[in-house]
Amino acid sequence: MNNTTRNRTMLIDFYEFTMANGYFNSKLKDKTVYFDISFRKVPDEGGYAIFAGLGSMIKYIENFEFTEDDLQYLKNQNLFSDDFINYLRSFKFTGDIYCVKEGTVIFPYEPVLTVKANIVEAQLLETYLLLCFNHQSLIATKSSRIKRAAKGRVVLEMGARRAHGVSSANNGSRAAYIAGIDATSNTLADCLYGIPCSGTMAHSWVQMFDSEEEAFRKYVRTYPNNATLLVDTYDTLRSGIPNAIKVIKEELLPKNITNFAIRIDSGDLTYLSKEARKMLDEAGLTMCKIVVSNALDEYLIEALLNQGAPIDVFGVGERLVTAKSNPVLGGVYKLCAMENEDEITPKIKISDNPVKITIPHFKKLYRIYDKKTHKAKADLITIFDEKIDESKPLTIFDPEYTWKTQTFKEYIIKDIRETIYKDGKLVYKLPSLDQIREHTKKELSYLWDEVLRFDNPHKYYVDLSEKLWQTKLNLIKKMKKSL
Amino acid sequence: MNNTTRNRTMLIDFYEFTMANGYFNSKLKDKTVYFDISFRKVPDEGGYAIFAGLGSMIKYIENFEFTEDDLQYLKNQNLFSDDFINYLRSFKFTGDIYCVKEGTVIFPYEPVLTVKANIVEAQLLETYLLLCFNHQSLIATKSSRIKRAAKGRVVLEMGARRAHGVSSANNGSRAAYIAGIDATSNTLADCLYGIPCSGTMAHSWVQMFDSEEEAFRKYVRTYPNNATLLVDTYDTLRSGIPNAIKVIKEELLPKNITNFAIRIDSGDLTYLSKEARKMLDEAGLTMCKIVVSNALDEYLIEALLNQGAPIDVFGVGERLVTAKSNPVLGGVYKLCAMENEDEITPKIKISDNPVKITIPHFKKLYRIYDKKTHKAKADLITIFDEKIDESKPLTIFDPEYTWKTQTFKEYIIKDIRETIYKDGKLVYKLPSLDQIREHTKKELSYLWDEVLRFDNPHKYYVDLSEKLWQTKLNLIKKMKKSL
Repeated sequence: MNNTTRNRTMLIDFYEFTMANGYFNSKLKDKTVYFDISFRKVPDEGGYAIFAGLGSMIKYIENFEFTEDDLQYLKNQNLFSDDFINYLRSFKFTGDIYCVKEGTVIFPYEPVLTVKANIVEAQLLETYLLLCFNHQSLIATKSSRIKRAAKGRVVLEMGARRAHGVSSANNGSRAAYIAGIDATSNTLADCLYGIPCSGTMAHSWVQMFDSEEEAFRKYVRTYPNNATLLVDTYDTLRSGIPNAIKVIKEELLPKNITNFAIRIDSGDLTYLSKEARKMLDEAGLTMCKIVVSNALDEYLIEALLNQGAPIDVFGVGERLVTAKSNPVLGGVYKLCAMENEDEITPKIKISDNPVKITIPHFKKLYRIYDKKTHKAKADLITIFDEKIDESKPLTIFDPEYTWKTQTFKEYIIKDIRETIYKDGKLVYKLPSLDQIREHTKKELSYLWDEVLRFDNPHKYYVDLSEKLWQTKLNLIKKMKKSL
Repeated sequence: MNNTTRNRTMLIDFYEFTMANGYFNSKLKDKTVYFDISFRKVPDEGGYAIFAGLGSMIKYIENFEFTEDDLQYLKNQNLFSDDFINYLRSFKFTGDIYCVKEGTVIFPYEPVLTVKANIVEAQLLETYLLLCFNHQSLIATKSSRIKRAAKGRVVLEMGARRAHGVSSANNGSRAAYIAGIDATSNTLADCLYGIPCSGTMAHSWVQMFDSEEEAFRKYVRTYPNNATLLVDTYDTLRSGIPNAIKVIKEELLPKNITNFAIRIDSGDLTYLSKEARKMLDEAGLTMCKIVVSNALDEYLIEALLNQGAPIDVFGVGERLVTAKSNPVLGGVYKLCAMENEDEITPKIKISDNPVKITIPHFKKLYRIYDKKTHKAKADLITIFDEKIDESKPLTIFDPEYTWKTQTFKEYIIKDIRETIYKDGKLVYKLPSLDQIREHTKKELSYLWDEVLRFDNPHKYYVDLSEKLWQTKLNLIKKMKKSL
């Protein structure tokens, strides 16, 4: 079986099948349930995360189909009823999905996405939806940090060779672009998603010619516009930069070309970039840009800029595409409610570890903005049918320290989730990638600097409505009493 | 364009195209070159890595083909000659590839894989070969550590939901299985590769029923053989385990079923597993296995076992599938030689950072075993045409501290690389996954415990032949003199 073309439908944890078959063959079969996707902790001790992955989720659901091979495989397990296998043969998602838009800023414990469906359908979607959410939001979040560290400078994503497989590379490029990264080295990502793609030379190019000078000369003659000469194959300051200057002056300046750069890929990037800048400027090449690469991330970029390194472009690879410092987002998919004769019954999962206690019920997710500054002040999670009267002051309280309250008078409140599926029909039109990227940019502009900073960021408020908080408390009490 | 079905050929860093077109339109076009894949550092400060990824590389090369869409894309860049694009239209790999077998133990600086081909072909394969090597060897290496920490106990891989995309999940499951992990939760990995797949229930199953007891009862009635009851949805010791015991005694023991388990997914796993064991044993369920999960890795497994936690099965997810503690292997693809009129000229890349200086020349990779113990003593890298006379003592020396020598008298020496491609033809038959797994097991048995240990492992010797060492030194000197 060819991995490249095989349908992805079976990327389902086996226990989803055992559970789904169990439900299917019980009285629970047609039970409508609600599952939330949420996460518990922002990676890298950061103040915010960025949601990505909805595009892949939609693609999965639209192409969700069990082949006869898949069904035969399941049959061979001797665990599942024929009725269940026949049901899978004509499986069609018939539920609703509510989700924030890609590029939206999200915070721990929020119901980023809710699936409302019969229990069999809802259970079967778990693995893939989580995979998309966890991976792509992780990379978007990491990329946003890296781009912000560069303080407006260009950042290129070049991590394909260190990615965790093909989809890690492709969806990694896409998530990075959503978060503001400027271009990718991965040509396939451009073919698939239209992400600007760039690249010029590796060390092998320089090694292939009899001399570094010849290698540079040959390159700029082939690609006179937009050449980036890699200067560290032999010796950056004694060979690479002098050769680059010579070739640029002889080959490009006479043609009035002013768009070129050098790239430094090893050594002390602060020292080398400062020396390079001096040498280039003294040669009259003030327009020559300096690109650096070599295991960079937001911390190193921040340090380089703090030291005054005159860098124009950062090439970032392995630490972005794997989110190296914290490669797990940890999103979960939890049952929060079920319908009983048209009434929605909230459901909870208790844990000795309070952070693992779920927020019960079918909910809505609101963001509260200051009417004057348009800055986001807090998020409010309510039960789905609560009404908020914007003309009246709104008091919210911390779900953990309930005496911590805030009252908003001049505010705008917005339900930040969209209806993606309604009765199994895709009713949402995915924006273009550039629109998503634009949305991210806007989202970040709504946050206070205190939430955005890397070290010890201010904890953004995510509060529960009093009714929801009370519902949760009652369920915990009831559960504890019954033990 | 559908991400699921799109050909992967274009997963090529854009600079490979600019370089390839540059070579193609120069006198270098038909130049035969040699590129090595190697890595510089074992992740997690470990003593060895395990090679994986060859299966995916072969699949890629066998299916390597530019579609008309791809060619049109390249044409639209206005950078590449028509001749080059026409050449790509009928691209066929015509070179040789030498590589260690999947599952082989590998060490830093070794030429794990060598591509001999014309420069255009060799350059275009770089990104994908590195991606396969870096990802799959990383996960195999991590998985080997985790499996060894479990000291013979069963380890299940259940990381799909936290994987970095589809191929991270599928190839992650495969790499884990190669390294000795016993089964996966990912059904697609079983469909694709035949990896044993398992799974029983999530918290949602327990939440769906009116009581935990009912949930357990319903489950074991549906799946009487091999049920694993998840006991921490409400309260492990006060509710989960008592309910599990009750249901097992009432439903399974009367049917003479003795194959069942409980799973604990939160809380203090040492304390809970000890208490669980006591409760189960007191109820006469000594045969009931205890499964634990919750962000486990080799360090936590080792700690649990050191504390005497009576655990039979470890479920390992995010920390395996992302290699969380060190998610980058860092393999590189470096030009090491080129042919000039039938002579092979060694090539080097210098760096201020000695670890980034490459080992020049077309090489062979030997492993030296003790004739009596069959333990691997050292690896020896030589120039491709050096002869070693096994009947004579062999003295090797440390390439860094050359006064450190070792002489072997009773030894077996083995070229550990296979010819995978010869003149573009695949001449290697990939072993079955179980054969690869068996090979890994054997490979580990050749290593001394001192190399295998987690903390401060003994550094396995990887030495250069004198001729190769001299070649490298001469090239460095020559290069430095020319600056």
